[in-house]
Amino acid sequence: MITFNIQPVNKSLQAAIQEKIDNLNKPKGALGRLEELAMQICLIQQTLSPSLDHPCHLLLGGDHGIEREGVSASPREVTWQQMINFTHGGGGVNMFCRQHGFKLRIVDVGVDYDLSSVPGVINRKVARGTKNFLYEPAMSDEEFNQAIQVGCDLVDECVAEGCRILCVGEMGIANTSPSSIWMHLFGNIPLKDCIGAGSGLDSPGIRHKYEVLKKAVERYEAYTSSSASDLSPLQYFGGFEMITAIGAMLRGAERHLIVLIDGFIMSACAVAAIKLYPDAQDYMIFTHCGDEKGHRDMLGIVGAEALLSLGLKLGEGTGALCAFPIIDSAVRMMNEMNNFDNAKITKYF
Amino acid sequence: MITFNIQPVNKSLQAAIQEKIDNLNKPKGALGRLEELAMQICLIQQTLSPSLDHPCHLLLGGDHGIEREGVSASPREVTWQQMINFTHGGGGVNMFCRQHGFKLRIVDVGVDYDLSSVPGVINRKVARGTKNFLYEPAMSDEEFNQAIQVGCDLVDECVAEGCRILCVGEMGIANTSPSSIWMHLFGNIPLKDCIGAGSGLDSPGIRHKYEVLKKAVERYEAYTSSSASDLSPLQYFGGFEMITAIGAMLRGAERHLIVLIDGFIMSACAVAAIKLYPDAQDYMIFTHCGDEKGHRDMLGIVGAEALLSLGLKLGEGTGALCAFPIIDSAVRMMNEMNNFDNAKITKYF
Repeated sequence: MITFNIQPVNKSLQAAIQEKIDNLNKPKGALGRLEELAMQICLIQQTLSPSLDHPCHLLLGGDHGIEREGVSASPREVTWQQMINFTHGGGGVNMFCRQHGFKLRIVDVGVDYDLSSVPGVINRKVARGTKNFLYEPAMSDEEFNQAIQVGCDLVDECVAEGCRILCVGEMGIANTSPSSIWMHLFGNIPLKDCIGAGSGLDSPGIRHKYEVLKKAVERYEAYTSSSASDLSPLQYFGGFEMITAIGAMLRGAERHLIVLIDGFIMSACAVAAIKLYPDAQDYMIFTHCGDEKGHRDMLGIVGAEALLSLGLKLGEGTGALCAFPIIDSAVRMMNEMNNFDNAKITKYF
Repeated sequence: MITFNIQPVNKSLQAAIQEKIDNLNKPKGALGRLEELAMQICLIQQTLSPSLDHPCHLLLGGDHGIEREGVSASPREVTWQQMINFTHGGGGVNMFCRQHGFKLRIVDVGVDYDLSSVPGVINRKVARGTKNFLYEPAMSDEEFNQAIQVGCDLVDECVAEGCRILCVGEMGIANTSPSSIWMHLFGNIPLKDCIGAGSGLDSPGIRHKYEVLKKAVERYEAYTSSSASDLSPLQYFGGFEMITAIGAMLRGAERHLIVLIDGFIMSACAVAAIKLYPDAQDYMIFTHCGDEKGHRDMLGIVGAEALLSLGLKLGEGTGALCAFPIIDSAVRMMNEMNNFDNAKITKYF
């Protein structure tokens, strides 16, 4: 895997930023999480007057071999159908991107359908879906590296346009399955507690999903111990859209972007990215804690607390986009609010 | 007190609205609270295609006699200083109004300072602050009715401009004190559990605040029982900005506006309004649950759950304004998302 040069944020400005925040015309700490966000963003950008120029959203699509095992309530074809729907502007992700001024890139990294002639879909396909990880690794070394590289390239394109804030979302039927397994493996959390309803499984469906994933994890453990292979769970279980997301998050951190982390699947990717490069977390904002069982526990692996909890479970990056105005408010606080001196107010508490 | 003609929302469209929501191209329920908001807003506006035209924010300022008892960490003069600061655009409320396109009305209903010549402050002053409710009712019958009427008039002006969504905020040093008492009286919640730090009291300060408010409540109870007066806790303890807020909320409900309820103080006013007219709650969205001790319990009095919990404790309506984009998303969902038919997607779950 290509290596990243990810530095922790330089904290030399911390005291100056805090002083500016505390002198704004409000009781100390009165803007709560906005003040914490402002601190993080100022440190990422090394400034007391941050900006959110050219917000970009990467919508990454991919299919999963494990879908053949009936672990998802929705059929595989929904992935490509939704990718096309997004190009027409009628999806949830489109609505949020329009609302908050995000430039949307719809990227096919692993959809099991030929989208190459669909206008509006960027073709970076690694393969038509991953292999079924119940029987074999989801992808080869080459495919893994290619997916990571796609994430880097996409971010570099955003940065070239002046992007300072990056959002990553996914469309991939069955991708809660690898997410649950990563949560189990990276967080040492019992697999049962990592599995939820995905996009709408009933109780027998969840039990079946658990049985399938349990068997897959056992085989992975047998595979890596018997062959003395150190094949990572990323490569063994991941979807192309997920590996590309990890590449994008890491390149985003490397290039000092603010990186918005969406719901369950993107949180799994963020946790994986942080396991590889712990300092990458300095650049991440966890935006939404959804209904998916265990999402809170997943965030707990890296000690994160999400900004919103609105019961969203659509994916596509919609939770992260939904939280954008709050981040915008934090930035406006730094740039637009008066301080006690120029507002001519008795400093209060 | 003037009477309001507040009708519960007409639910005859409920099934049609739900069908539209369920047929949008997403798994059923996947947009969580946005779907609940969409239902509420569609019922308020009696349409399947709602709108949020001309959002208006009322920033109501008033001072409190009880401030003389040292129940607030901030001095009384901060009220008028902040009112002037708001006219210069540098307050928290200004920043949020600009961000989300709210027309801001800065209204003096009871500030203890002559603001009549300050450009940008609307002068509807009832009196220069309330009386000290430790010793006597905060306001007379006339003052109470006048404050309610001011709220009605302000809302009527907003509606005349085409406003469909109303936000109400306050600036009034010491106004957590009457809010705590209302919570105690309306919710049958022990007074101790209703008292928090306000804008920054320490532990001895909170104890002192408790002693003062306890004595005030005892005297109120003696007053109303001995004199056989039925003087309401609204009139006995309220601030002018709070009574005007109640008038505005009730007129907002009467005129079928969406009414956004801010943090602790505005939640106390909303609870009071709902006690008077239970159907008014159909029109209210509780937006932010702050740090103030017991805010969650206060919302529990009327079974409400706030959209956000970001630790904001600034007042001014900032929590409600901060939640506006989420409400906007709910409306956009109804107007912009494709359904399964026009998106050509296999209906999934």
